[in-house]
Amino acid sequence: MKKIEVPLGEATRIINHGPCVLISVANNNRDNLFTVAWNMPVKKSPALVAIESSKSHFSFPFIETSGEFCINVPSASIVESVLKAGKVSGAVVADKFAHAGLTRARSEKIRAPRVAEAVAHLECKVKQIISIDSSAIIIGEVLCAVADETSFSNGVWQFDNGLKLLHHLGGNAFCISEKKILL
Amino acid sequence: MKKIEVPLGEATRIINHGPCVLISVANNNRDNLFTVAWNMPVKKSPALVAIESSKSHFSFPFIETSGEFCINVPSASIVESVLKAGKVSGAVVADKFAHAGLTRARSEKIRAPRVAEAVAHLECKVKQIISIDSSAIIIGEVLCAVADETSFSNGVWQFDNGLKLLHHLGGNAFCISEKKILL
Repeated sequence: MKKIEVPLGEATRIINHGPCVLISVANNNRDNLFTVAWNMPVKKSPALVAIESSKSHFSFPFIETSGEFCINVPSASIVESVLKAGKVSGAVVADKFAHAGLTRARSEKIRAPRVAEAVAHLECKVKQIISIDSSAIIIGEVLCAVADETSFSNGVWQFDNGLKLLHHLGGNAFCISEKKILL
Repeated sequence: MKKIEVPLGEATRIINHGPCVLISVANNNRDNLFTVAWNMPVKKSPALVAIESSKSHFSFPFIETSGEFCINVPSASIVESVLKAGKVSGAVVADKFAHAGLTRARSEKIRAPRVAEAVAHLECKVKQIISIDSSAIIIGEVLCAVADETSFSNGVWQFDNGLKLLHHLGGNAFCISEKKILL
């Protein structure tokens, strides 16, 4: 899989379709990984994105203290790993990458590693954390965006090479999109 | 299409998969409709959801003054209407429902009408509006949730009856999910 840089002006398109994503984080001691269905773009330029996290989530202080996180977009080919990463806390499993059968790759702009098996990455710095009851909406500004060159081009996901994008229905159920409608 | 009530504890599942939705609004004088790809759940109980809107958007003051909006989840069968509703402002088209070839249906808890052709509805009251530069994240609490009984049951979308859910890739491009993976 060869990944190419996506212009920041097109970065929000990487999560425009409402994917289930893997968030990777790191602090001074270790990294972690968790699954997030609740995410959306917020602004195209500068490229801002939002993810939801419970404030009691193990990874939440990683994001608070480092001010960084990486959004990794998985395809359906690694759905089992996506579910594994979401089913257990980093408080219980010290190496969530190993637990989920996933590989670290170096990020360009932040310390948190990318998930090598994902088809795209948005490296983000925290712009704002908004408290909503016990939840938080974390707004990130995208510093670097990359995507698999056969799956994403001209700012749009491409399905000609068999790409299956992953969405979370809830619990152990996912749905996949593998067809584009162009009006 | 027969719609049945969805328990509020399952309401966020209706947009858990990251759909492209139609937002309907009303003020004292008229109603309006617009297309939103940027939305996500925020909290399961109470059921909170977020949509993004530019503050310069024609419908934004409708939501500010009425404190209400309805999230309508379309299937791919009405993708042309979804695109039409998103391509032109309510400042130009006085009746966006007619323009998009869509039908109003009465909401249960709010004044903004539902889009009859949609497969699910979340009637929301505004809980909070968060300003992010020129954009706003509008947090709504779901007051009433309903869905097509053949398409959504036990808190999960069901594809056995040919349901095709709609996601927005960007511009005139959409993708559809029509298959469930249950791990």
